[in-house]
Amino acid sequence: MMTDTPLAFAQKSSCSSLRTAIRRGRVFGLLGLASFAIALSGCATVTSAEADKPALYVYSTIDALLSGAYDGELTVKHLVSKGDFGLGTYNRLDGEMLVLGGVPYHFTADGAVTVAKPDDKIPLAYVLPFRPTHRFTLAGSPTAMSLTDIEAAIDARLPNKNLFYAVDVTGQFTGITTRAIAAQTRPYRPLAELVKTQVLFPRDAATGTMVGIRSPAFSKGVSVPGWHWHFISTDRSYGGHVLAIGLVNAVASVTPSHKVDLDLPANEDFANSDQTKDRSAELHQVEKQQK
Amino acid sequence: MMTDTPLAFAQKSSCSSLRTAIRRGRVFGLLGLASFAIALSGCATVTSAEADKPALYVYSTIDALLSGAYDGELTVKHLVSKGDFGLGTYNRLDGEMLVLGGVPYHFTADGAVTVAKPDDKIPLAYVLPFRPTHRFTLAGSPTAMSLTDIEAAIDARLPNKNLFYAVDVTGQFTGITTRAIAAQTRPYRPLAELVKTQVLFPRDAATGTMVGIRSPAFSKGVSVPGWHWHFISTDRSYGGHVLAIGLVNAVASVTPSHKVDLDLPANEDFANSDQTKDRSAELHQVEKQQK
Repeated sequence: MMTDTPLAFAQKSSCSSLRTAIRRGRVFGLLGLASFAIALSGCATVTSAEADKPALYVYSTIDALLSGAYDGELTVKHLVSKGDFGLGTYNRLDGEMLVLGGVPYHFTADGAVTVAKPDDKIPLAYVLPFRPTHRFTLAGSPTAMSLTDIEAAIDARLPNKNLFYAVDVTGQFTGITTRAIAAQTRPYRPLAELVKTQVLFPRDAATGTMVGIRSPAFSKGVSVPGWHWHFISTDRSYGGHVLAIGLVNAVASVTPSHKVDLDLPANEDFANSDQTKDRSAELHQVEKQQK
Repeated sequence: MMTDTPLAFAQKSSCSSLRTAIRRGRVFGLLGLASFAIALSGCATVTSAEADKPALYVYSTIDALLSGAYDGELTVKHLVSKGDFGLGTYNRLDGEMLVLGGVPYHFTADGAVTVAKPDDKIPLAYVLPFRPTHRFTLAGSPTAMSLTDIEAAIDARLPNKNLFYAVDVTGQFTGITTRAIAAQTRPYRPLAELVKTQVLFPRDAATGTMVGIRSPAFSKGVSVPGWHWHFISTDRSYGGHVLAIGLVNAVASVTPSHKVDLDLPANEDFANSDQTKDRSAELHQVEKQQK
């Protein structure tokens, strides 16, 4: 079941607390969702041209990370000034990063979830100011939607596959597997080798938010083409990079981005990283669950 | 022969007229260059962190152009607000674009060189505020340096191949071949087909400026990996996309860019363009001289 609600939010409206409540996953019943969808339609405000076009801030490149450039100069403080929603990792490849509602979460390989410190550093990140233009419900019936199903259902609502999209999917999930990789020591090995050491965190059920970035094919080398998902539970105690998930019911909120603000690290690791080879196969190995 | 002159310009210094004179190619003798290099060293001023990092403004993607997306919404007026140096083309694939000293030149397939109007539109462009950090002389002796030689000589000065660079090579050239493609009518055919209709403009010798953008391998799909050169003569009567050139002597000025400001067209052509295939072979066919 999918119910469409086109939105035209200003960045800060009187409806923000309502949206926040929905984003935080406090409301999951479908009837409740329908009511909220109607309420949200009433929240639509005039949107300026600039508000229509939040820029996706990208620090470093996926090919640099794949090659082993695990240390950046970007601070968490600077990152959250560029966007309140997104994903990435931390220096030394220390676990997974997720930014939601402006809060930079840190999932480590021991299973802990903490809030990163302003001076923590980042080798790779994708964030933007989350200003959804479209919202719809997703529900798995009679069985949960798989990750592939979720991506297909959202893709069906995105006529332009040549833009970037940030998507918040907040609701009730089942059969979740997240992963995190432990902090590394130098000399760093390529990511495709380290992924064999990843720690898996399976969970039967959780309410929470999938934070997704969808990147167009032409951005290969800079971003992960297609979908890239991290997850955080509503109680902020569980999450990581999503390898598998089942959706019971949720609300998907979509922020399209026509603009990318790419910021390349000014350090030796980045300068010396070999970004000339095609790392598509390595990327698939790193990002997806191995069959 | 190459003489290095590291620079640290503020965007506007009292030396700007001197730099402008050099950029405009009024001085070509090597002795003269040496004197100017010394004079320019004296121009170095304190450079702010931001001035170190001019953003390369990129409108649309090379893969969109290759697929036949020849109409953009970007105006010349907006383009030159983003940078005073760079290259691209005009709507309907009408010839070649070069921006130098903030002036948007237009080379058409009839061999004319005009200054574009503020409302002219652009489907693809790469421009930045030109703030060179490094300058050196290049000279072909006893024979002119080929395009390959020029690129190799500049590459040797760029330790970090994972950044973007804008390079102004102003001097005396020989054996030049430029090209331009005539404006197209819909339905548009892919660029690799149209390049067969390109008009060549050979010239035995000219003084002028090569305007180059060097893009890292990871930007494939968005930009032309490696070098991309357009040329304009000092008298502004001749130029286009460079297929072949010989360098007698010149000054190369290099502006590195750690930042890219990518702006994707908000039109149907871009949305519908097939950017999923690998267009490397098409790109080579389009950008380089066929043997």
